[in-house]
Amino acid sequence: MRMSELSTATGVAVPTLKFYLREQLLHAGERTSPNQAQYDASHVERVRLVRALLEVGGLSVAQAARVVGALDSDLPLSSVFGVAQRAVSIPAALASADDEATDAEPAPTAGQTRIAALCESRGWRVYPNNPGLPLAARVLDTYAALGLGHISDTVLDRYAQAADLVAAADLASVAAVDELTEMTRTVAAGTVLGDTLLAGLRRIAQEAESFRRFPLPDGAPAPGTSLLDEQDC
Amino acid sequence: MRMSELSTATGVAVPTLKFYLREQLLHAGERTSPNQAQYDASHVERVRLVRALLEVGGLSVAQAARVVGALDSDLPLSSVFGVAQRAVSIPAALASADDEATDAEPAPTAGQTRIAALCESRGWRVYPNNPGLPLAARVLDTYAALGLGHISDTVLDRYAQAADLVAAADLASVAAVDELTEMTRTVAAGTVLGDTLLAGLRRIAQEAESFRRFPLPDGAPAPGTSLLDEQDC
Repeated sequence: MRMSELSTATGVAVPTLKFYLREQLLHAGERTSPNQAQYDASHVERVRLVRALLEVGGLSVAQAARVVGALDSDLPLSSVFGVAQRAVSIPAALASADDEATDAEPAPTAGQTRIAALCESRGWRVYPNNPGLPLAARVLDTYAALGLGHISDTVLDRYAQAADLVAAADLASVAAVDELTEMTRTVAAGTVLGDTLLAGLRRIAQEAESFRRFPLPDGAPAPGTSLLDEQDC
Repeated sequence: MRMSELSTATGVAVPTLKFYLREQLLHAGERTSPNQAQYDASHVERVRLVRALLEVGGLSVAQAARVVGALDSDLPLSSVFGVAQRAVSIPAALASADDEATDAEPAPTAGQTRIAALCESRGWRVYPNNPGLPLAARVLDTYAALGLGHISDTVLDRYAQAADLVAAADLASVAAVDELTEMTRTVAAGTVLGDTLLAGLRRIAQEAESFRRFPLPDGAPAPGTSLLDEQDC
């Protein structure tokens, strides 16, 4: 198919497709003349994945390019997993964490020590370059610096339990896939989109929990008993 | 204190502080001469919060401005909570969801129907404008469109359990705070930073779980048994 047809098939405008090509988010089509190329089903699939990573996963173009680059290479599954793990929609936090890693060995922060202790207590055995370690430690240190009192052990433990539940489900999904190329796509999409799913569900559960804990002011409309009847969200 | 002292106290460069002022992320100091102003402890506190929202929470400047705007207004706690809930580091997904809401009533997508059913089955009573509803629904629809098979009910239910665990801990933290201004700051920081904490812990738990499920290739170095001994991450 031609680029205009790829655009129709994916719902992505031609200038955006050209941008994807330029940024190496999309592999080139097969050239049929100096200014025309043919695209196939692999391009449709890739455009959908790129949109999902950018728009729903919230990745930057550079992060998405790294994820699709890992899919195109012949990297083993565990490496694709690592690249997808490092693609988080919170670039600055990770970037600064990386900077620190190149410095001369600094003393561990209180957050790093707590996360290391948490790994110990939950039996989480990971490599020291796991991207979640600095990310989680940074949150603890930042929270403490805000002078809001620290995140309690009970709260941290609940978050860790939640992470375990989700990680077990994530890995079970990956293991259920037969084919290796599908498996790597599942890892890439699932790791990135899972963050968004969790952020969304957390917001629903928070509001539901807040109505349980804090009574509504008199006369305030009650939250919907059933969203199935009123699909106006 | 003067701006240079505010810079020293917070570790944020003067040009960045000026940017914060211009973007209304930081309230103005008290003017003492045409080109000098005095800042106080409230400015130090605010600069730390803004940095946390931008760098660790991954919010855009516009989102962070909305969160601090809610803190400065006399909004009730539940409204501050709503604003913080809407500030998610995945702008495009929410923006498109908002666009859809202004259209003529579209038929609910498969994702929206599943999320509504999930709310029903978990007893989550929320207003139809909860920002998590379109966010979670969008992930389900996107995943299905990728042709990767859909997210199973079992997986979705694990994510929902995880969200419940975390939301209960979140609300318990807020309820433990005595003072109202502290409470609103806790809500704002906790809602945004909690996403990052969860994303970080999920990455640690995923790697730990992957080593349990998939054996390492022969000769590969084993993951650390204790991170407490080797703080080189």
